[in-house]
Amino acid sequence: MKSTFSWKTLATDNRARAGEFSTPHGTLQTPLFAPVGTQATVKAITPAQLSEINPELVLANTYHLFLRPGEDIVAELGGLHVFMNWDGPILTDSGGFQVFSLASTRKIDDDGVTFRSHIDGSEKRLSPEISIDIQEKLGADIIMAFDECAKPLDFDYAKEAMQRTHVWAERCLSAKKRPDQALFGIVQGGIFRDLREESARTISSMGFPGHAIGGLSVGESKEDMYRTIEYVNAILPADKPRYLMGVGTQEDLIEGVLRGVDIFDCVHPTRLARHGAAMTKTGRLNMKGVIYARDPLAIDPDCACYTCQNFSRAYIRHLLVAKEILASTLLSIHNLHTLVQLTRDLRQAIIGGYLDDFAAEALAKLNLSRVPEVL
Amino acid sequence: MKSTFSWKTLATDNRARAGEFSTPHGTLQTPLFAPVGTQATVKAITPAQLSEINPELVLANTYHLFLRPGEDIVAELGGLHVFMNWDGPILTDSGGFQVFSLASTRKIDDDGVTFRSHIDGSEKRLSPEISIDIQEKLGADIIMAFDECAKPLDFDYAKEAMQRTHVWAERCLSAKKRPDQALFGIVQGGIFRDLREESARTISSMGFPGHAIGGLSVGESKEDMYRTIEYVNAILPADKPRYLMGVGTQEDLIEGVLRGVDIFDCVHPTRLARHGAAMTKTGRLNMKGVIYARDPLAIDPDCACYTCQNFSRAYIRHLLVAKEILASTLLSIHNLHTLVQLTRDLRQAIIGGYLDDFAAEALAKLNLSRVPEVL
Repeated sequence: MKSTFSWKTLATDNRARAGEFSTPHGTLQTPLFAPVGTQATVKAITPAQLSEINPELVLANTYHLFLRPGEDIVAELGGLHVFMNWDGPILTDSGGFQVFSLASTRKIDDDGVTFRSHIDGSEKRLSPEISIDIQEKLGADIIMAFDECAKPLDFDYAKEAMQRTHVWAERCLSAKKRPDQALFGIVQGGIFRDLREESARTISSMGFPGHAIGGLSVGESKEDMYRTIEYVNAILPADKPRYLMGVGTQEDLIEGVLRGVDIFDCVHPTRLARHGAAMTKTGRLNMKGVIYARDPLAIDPDCACYTCQNFSRAYIRHLLVAKEILASTLLSIHNLHTLVQLTRDLRQAIIGGYLDDFAAEALAKLNLSRVPEVL
Repeated sequence: MKSTFSWKTLATDNRARAGEFSTPHGTLQTPLFAPVGTQATVKAITPAQLSEINPELVLANTYHLFLRPGEDIVAELGGLHVFMNWDGPILTDSGGFQVFSLASTRKIDDDGVTFRSHIDGSEKRLSPEISIDIQEKLGADIIMAFDECAKPLDFDYAKEAMQRTHVWAERCLSAKKRPDQALFGIVQGGIFRDLREESARTISSMGFPGHAIGGLSVGESKEDMYRTIEYVNAILPADKPRYLMGVGTQEDLIEGVLRGVDIFDCVHPTRLARHGAAMTKTGRLNMKGVIYARDPLAIDPDCACYTCQNFSRAYIRHLLVAKEILASTLLSIHNLHTLVQLTRDLRQAIIGGYLDDFAAEALAKLNLSRVPEVL
């Protein structure tokens, strides 16, 4: 019997791949960028507006939903798809990353992590089994193994965290019960080649239907991030999707796709939007700037998003200066569209066999040049 | 030649009227409730979302747009319709009300008002001529005479402000140049019958294509407001639209329509939304309440709005508790839909000849009974 979750490589261009990954709520066309709906909402936009952007996949955060409103309430209301009114594929992370970045007074033991909620200070606990239980109640199509995300530059801690992540990955596989969810394993190991290679071998031996690269874009240099992706992807099997967690600048998407990454997510585009910044093919625009006060052009005159089809830079600047909520909405729509469209364009470039040219041109517009691969 | 701005009474039921008022951007079907887009945006929603609510008319505030971004910028960008991307009929107020409610250190003289901006404290001036000039640059379909809104309970000041308002109304008529805008005159006079009757006679003698009742819903009792509407509407000509400014609770819309009001506007529904309150046929719901934490129903299960068609009370409560922008958006959509639909229903009731029954039933659902008319 064919699995619900099957990967198909449609085209390759050197290490880059265009693929398909089937889920109960639709087939993902990769490479893809997934908007993040941290608290079961992509901030400042409705599901109807998100549908117009038409992302392949949407994220939600287990840590946040565990704390508020609680996984039992989401389950009672019919699961995440019904709760947030998103009928397309959803992925939840495991809560691991947020425990290490948001929560306070963490106590890590081999069984799990005890921490205090960043919302009300109450004591909470996550472990591989608890994370899987929560994610099964949330009901996303893709769920993630509970991992420990170490600081990327500390070898000893990175090694310890990696080893714990491996043990926890096995426990997540054992704990998992729902057949309609794909559990992805996460490779850790900081920026250390031997750790990353060991982690990639160990995690890919466990039989996950997809693999993620965790613990990057957390303070290391771009070069360290890119070469680490190469070490890992040289080992991860080619017949399963590869997800680079928490990465979402335009150059990182391009460099990641060139190195064989299929899936990306990041809060970056919506966070930038709420701070008044527009992501364009030629770089970032601070839309509060007085230079836009009388500018009748769209943010990006070639952009097909609702914002660029209907509003001037002058209007968006006015909304920002006047502190109107609509500014966040319109910029979130534009920024998400920009990243989703970039991954669609990268996919077409892979299928069309012109990826190198496309990447060089897209990077040049951003005043960047391609970072040489090390492997 | 038929004027661009023509009123047609389609049906009456006692004092209530169903009518049509043609403008360059479409024909208003009355009674109607106009959402307020203070700073050229109906707060927290896009024009596309506003289109789904399908209001007959949208307001914008001259005072706010005068201060920011300035009428010249709006004019340069093609006027309000283009600037805010709303192709339907728009009305701007004159700035008078806001000068008296928002600005500080006002100095009123017979020529106009000097005040300090509530945004940056800079000194500004409005007069009948300046207000009309600004409103012509903004380019709404309906513009308003510059008036002085007195505290409703002080007879001497109400009389002085009314007399100034009459002089200013004439000056607005003289200052007006654009033929594609309808200038409405405003009746003042506090809650004093003789003043209101004098004002209604004076203003309606000036030949405006429509009339407004200003200075109500500013602290007086409901009974005082309702009887004042009666005094005024008994005098205002029946062949022109009547606009009750700044009024927007459900009971006020019903009682106003029963007394012959055609047009309403208010920030109330969107302001309530941002504070987490839902307006329903059976009253106001505080959606933050813990009683909604697991409630799978829509805010109003019979409501056709996007919010009620797609989201549970539990989800909206979660968004409010989690301080997500989407809460303001979804509640604004619902509250505006509720008031716009109420005026549509009132219109149908007038045309169908069942207004008394409809009003009694709608008020009963709100735990209210009809306030007897005094005239």
